[in-house]
Amino acid sequence: MAASGTPSERVQVTFLGTSSGVPTRSRNVSAVAVRPPQRAELWLFDCGEGTQHQFLRSDLRVSQLRRIFITHMHGDHVFGLPGLLASLGMAGTCSGLDLHGPRPLEAFVLGALEHSSTRIGYPLRFHAVEEAARRGSPVLQDGDLTVTCAPLRHRIPAFGYRVQQAERPGRFDPEAARALGLTPGPLFARLKAGETVQLDDGRRIDGRRLCGAPQPGLSMAYCTDTVFSESAVGLARGVDLLIHEATFSHADAELAFQRQHSTSTMAAQTAAEAGAARLLLTHLSPRYAPGNGTTPEDLLAEARAIFPATDLARDLLAIDLLPGACNSS
Amino acid sequence: MAASGTPSERVQVTFLGTSSGVPTRSRNVSAVAVRPPQRAELWLFDCGEGTQHQFLRSDLRVSQLRRIFITHMHGDHVFGLPGLLASLGMAGTCSGLDLHGPRPLEAFVLGALEHSSTRIGYPLRFHAVEEAARRGSPVLQDGDLTVTCAPLRHRIPAFGYRVQQAERPGRFDPEAARALGLTPGPLFARLKAGETVQLDDGRRIDGRRLCGAPQPGLSMAYCTDTVFSESAVGLARGVDLLIHEATFSHADAELAFQRQHSTSTMAAQTAAEAGAARLLLTHLSPRYAPGNGTTPEDLLAEARAIFPATDLARDLLAIDLLPGACNSS
Repeated sequence: MAASGTPSERVQVTFLGTSSGVPTRSRNVSAVAVRPPQRAELWLFDCGEGTQHQFLRSDLRVSQLRRIFITHMHGDHVFGLPGLLASLGMAGTCSGLDLHGPRPLEAFVLGALEHSSTRIGYPLRFHAVEEAARRGSPVLQDGDLTVTCAPLRHRIPAFGYRVQQAERPGRFDPEAARALGLTPGPLFARLKAGETVQLDDGRRIDGRRLCGAPQPGLSMAYCTDTVFSESAVGLARGVDLLIHEATFSHADAELAFQRQHSTSTMAAQTAAEAGAARLLLTHLSPRYAPGNGTTPEDLLAEARAIFPATDLARDLLAIDLLPGACNSS
Repeated sequence: MAASGTPSERVQVTFLGTSSGVPTRSRNVSAVAVRPPQRAELWLFDCGEGTQHQFLRSDLRVSQLRRIFITHMHGDHVFGLPGLLASLGMAGTCSGLDLHGPRPLEAFVLGALEHSSTRIGYPLRFHAVEEAARRGSPVLQDGDLTVTCAPLRHRIPAFGYRVQQAERPGRFDPEAARALGLTPGPLFARLKAGETVQLDDGRRIDGRRLCGAPQPGLSMAYCTDTVFSESAVGLARGVDLLIHEATFSHADAELAFQRQHSTSTMAAQTAAEAGAARLLLTHLSPRYAPGNGTTPEDLLAEARAIFPATDLARDLLAIDLLPGACNSS
């Protein structure tokens, strides 16, 4: 495992809260931290109350936080924001933060900061996602990463997010280059990057012909809160990792429809239809505490019957998505 | 120790958060739960982020919460309110809650609930305390308990609170009553309560003459955030327990004045001048973590040099105030 904070080719996903609605002694309310590949920065998806406390319990550095994505405005997904932003301000190490989410996010955050006389001392930039969700255009294009979002089906407007890394050039073959009479150095670097290079002898060499097949970029989707939704299936098409809510067990499907949440089996069905490599269930109702009639393990078994590559999220669980790996175990 | 939740003559004080500004791994931000004597209910003083999580870690039942008192609007004293109120709503066991505090409290709470589409389903009653603080009139008169407040000295308006139990009748002397030819039963109960009773033989018996000296009621004061303040001294006059902030060590007095916080020695001076029986230091700056140059134990020693009956608060520390005890150890 890469040392914490060290840029690496992998995507590191850390669950900071995996309970639905209210915290329990073992699961906090929603938050997932994501370290994008090759960057010493963190992105956060949702920020329930106590998220800054969970950072303290993890090996993540809150000072690396650069972006926060909010799925919807229910308290168990946003009530940790004012405290986290205030603490970042007190630490004095934050150079700015981008907040992506539903339109009311800005009024909520600015209201809380104003009523509490909190001056954070760094720029906060708000980006409403409704328009991008409606048009299907990216929420964000940042280096080799594209973030898209899609409307989910919940009691209030909610949005799922997908993070997609761009396709990366295939592996460069130095022997093939040498066979063409080329010598290692700056030329190799340009060919590795897929450029076409004009040589002094007049030959034009297409770098792509010296590289293997392009590698698909890593991808993950985060879908909560929602009842089964075709739009979540579309968002999660072919992802390496789908994080999907599973508030209820299959037996409680009526409750799920009533409250516009998913059952374990709806989450599994979404992963299967989307052709995801791997599914992590989160946002579990506290009613399924170990020792009760139905447990999280039962929800896992229900999902695995439909989509075997399923696991249960738990607080502080960290998962690495590796380039070129099938990311399915 | 009385079983949790059982009404008892004692006042039970439980510290739920004892850090200043930001949470640490061992101390959460401000909150203190108080169980008033003879009641199966809880009052809360301040409600930093994560207070509902601290309830889960304690043996207190959040369903018994009836009143919340807020000292001031800084985030580390109020950011736990929206989540706590929302969770009480989801539990469905709350019949209503009274919130006492600075005027902006109502807009902060209602704003957070509205932006998050939270419908709590029980009545919330807001009581601004500015007027009572200015006039020196009670914030609350509830049975045998009177709550008063006083303005503190901080960067924004802040208020200390005092809970005062009414004087209770002295202990009834059944032997003295029997010596007057009286027999145990309903008559004894009336005399115990201090009533004057007319007997069939024409005698009038003053119950107070059969009771010992009246016992003073229990009292406590909660003063945070503030630099040394005469008004805190007045509020804490003769209390059984003074809970006072001690953000800084004596050596950091310049910082304390600058940020309008107290040093350990200012807290001790307040307790000494007020003639409090006992002092608990809370709201400690995270800079004094064990292992650093100055530790919480150093702050304790500084305070004890001035006011020996001082202790350090820590998260989940529970203290009983006992009627008739000196409550000083």
